[in-house]
Amino acid sequence: MINEKNLQLGTARSAIRELFEYGKRQAALVGAENVFDFSLGNPSTPAPKEINDAVTEILSTCDPIAVHGYTSAQGSIETRTAIADSITRRFGTSADADDIYVTCGAAAALCCSFGALTKDNNTEFIAIAPYFPEYKVFVEGAGAKFLAVPAKTDDFQIDFTRLEATLNPNSAAVIINSPNNPSGVVYSADTIKKLSALLERKSEEFGHPIYIIADEPYRELVYDGIEVPFIPNYYRNTIVCYSYSKSLSLPGERIGYIYVPKFADNSRQVYAAAAGAGRAMGYVCAPSLLQQVITRCINATPDLTNYETNRKLLLENLTTYGYECAAPDGAFYLFIKAPDGDGNSFSEKAKEKNLLIVPGESFGCKEYVRISYCVDTDMIKRALPCFKELIEC
Amino acid sequence: MINEKNLQLGTARSAIRELFEYGKRQAALVGAENVFDFSLGNPSTPAPKEINDAVTEILSTCDPIAVHGYTSAQGSIETRTAIADSITRRFGTSADADDIYVTCGAAAALCCSFGALTKDNNTEFIAIAPYFPEYKVFVEGAGAKFLAVPAKTDDFQIDFTRLEATLNPNSAAVIINSPNNPSGVVYSADTIKKLSALLERKSEEFGHPIYIIADEPYRELVYDGIEVPFIPNYYRNTIVCYSYSKSLSLPGERIGYIYVPKFADNSRQVYAAAAGAGRAMGYVCAPSLLQQVITRCINATPDLTNYETNRKLLLENLTTYGYECAAPDGAFYLFIKAPDGDGNSFSEKAKEKNLLIVPGESFGCKEYVRISYCVDTDMIKRALPCFKELIEC
Repeated sequence: MINEKNLQLGTARSAIRELFEYGKRQAALVGAENVFDFSLGNPSTPAPKEINDAVTEILSTCDPIAVHGYTSAQGSIETRTAIADSITRRFGTSADADDIYVTCGAAAALCCSFGALTKDNNTEFIAIAPYFPEYKVFVEGAGAKFLAVPAKTDDFQIDFTRLEATLNPNSAAVIINSPNNPSGVVYSADTIKKLSALLERKSEEFGHPIYIIADEPYRELVYDGIEVPFIPNYYRNTIVCYSYSKSLSLPGERIGYIYVPKFADNSRQVYAAAAGAGRAMGYVCAPSLLQQVITRCINATPDLTNYETNRKLLLENLTTYGYECAAPDGAFYLFIKAPDGDGNSFSEKAKEKNLLIVPGESFGCKEYVRISYCVDTDMIKRALPCFKELIEC
Repeated sequence: MINEKNLQLGTARSAIRELFEYGKRQAALVGAENVFDFSLGNPSTPAPKEINDAVTEILSTCDPIAVHGYTSAQGSIETRTAIADSITRRFGTSADADDIYVTCGAAAALCCSFGALTKDNNTEFIAIAPYFPEYKVFVEGAGAKFLAVPAKTDDFQIDFTRLEATLNPNSAAVIINSPNNPSGVVYSADTIKKLSALLERKSEEFGHPIYIIADEPYRELVYDGIEVPFIPNYYRNTIVCYSYSKSLSLPGERIGYIYVPKFADNSRQVYAAAAGAGRAMGYVCAPSLLQQVITRCINATPDLTNYETNRKLLLENLTTYGYECAAPDGAFYLFIKAPDGDGNSFSEKAKEKNLLIVPGESFGCKEYVRISYCVDTDMIKRALPCFKELIEC
């Protein structure tokens, strides 16, 4: 009387977690300073000072019953207003509080969005490889089918020929993640315009909207002055799933939101169905203290200094050694081509040197490996000789 | 391309929420002091002082990256150890950290448990009326069937004849909520022993364990020295779903746990499948700061003074006026029989006097109404004449 699929999901760890746990065991054997762990996407920069200041102020000045009390399921009106105003101000659209549903992070936002758009078990969601592996788990958890369109590995923008061939009358949405985990690539305005045109055309052909689900936890983490296009400004049928995990270094606190623009087709039904999906999964409300923190810290920005330093250090050295790397304009990952063309065997070879990098296979690109550079800069310096040996041997 | 069921769940409010929203509108019309809102189960006692002290200490002394960082999906080892040690100490069982899965409150704990035990869409979960209405939403969200066994309204203990008639080879678990929302009744040790014997017998007959899912957010809220039996001590195949929402007045913070005793049948599979269900619903981890707060405040106890005062005031007066009431040994609810035998019409009549009490129908007992006494004591005093008029007219 046990659910086999959930048993399997709870028993098998993801490739990323397996590597991380291996690293902890090796550290005990050979010393933490001799293990170079580039496996996890856990921010290495502390939350901005405003966050803890806001907590302290809220606890010392507000009614404790209100601070820790239930908010409405979609989030407190103050939090939703602050988020909507920020979107309006930053992106020149006109969001309001009723378009925002505050969630326990981007994972919950995605699960609610998939639940909203899953008409039946023929419904399909399409991700563009390379993609965050949990998309498949979330989509299948909602009772729908997960499909991936292979990567265009010259620039990691979207392969429209392959995407068009994959779209069909069961397609509910295309999942976009830009800046991308694992490639770090930001989709250009040109890519978004082409995607928009294709989806407009196919929506008309199939007689129903095909949405974009824009998973944007890395929006604020971009380098060298790169602009991240705000997708609802290009395609009205966009559902934005945002998280403060990476931008404000709060991954454990589980706070993010869904933005369903009021100009999207069936906007109010999509919003209500996302709320209903959340209700059926037991998401009563997003953590109340954190909702108030976000309300007060809506303009806080991440400190990118550490990531900029790490990115430059790794990128310059790895390309000098001869590695090929996707354009790492955002997030905190480098996606490099395995010198032998096989990400799995290269990750294994690296592991023998206690250098932990994630095989690209679970992201849908088996020729690659992912390096998370949200790490200590000194560890990168100690690891560089290993990277050099690995490409030379 | 929208999920009809989730659309419906996100569009229709629960009866409780409808009444609460009505109260807010009436307050604007007739003045807040003239609306007597007994609709919600939102704690009216502030969180113990230890909670805010712990937050302040954690923020001022701990590494911010660790404070706000991801924990492992099942919760940090420190939090799970603290919870397990507390269970061992209080109930004389031998829980350990690997038996505990920290969740975003009891709602998440229940959804993960239902997800774990839903073998296929014939699987059934049985609640004993009166029951918390969201059980049905959560069970159906997991893809299983929800059944309710009618109440034994003389004492609101379990009607074993009816329960036995409802059990069948598709039964995965019986949901127990004691102290009970909405009746306030605590199941006696005798009831639990009988339930245990019945489920042992039926498990053997059907060739698979039938679990008890013990939903225990009100465990700590009991009066007059009543003891709440710890169900795993009576029936090994018990899954405990706990929340700190009511006991520590933290309902908005979403923190609780699942305890799967290692002596339960298939204990490790049930635990893993619950974790897998959580993963598929996007529950990455329970809020990290709150996990650390619970670790430090594991021995904090609720201040029951306000609830004791309110309970006595209402109970004494309502029974004097002639109302019949279930034994309110725990939680913060009175479940009274509608004088005209129809909870819906009585709730409507009360509403005309701006007295907001929830019809029992949504809890599976349509002759009753629920009064939440987690309210301001002065409001009760102002509302008493209304209660008197309603039974006299």
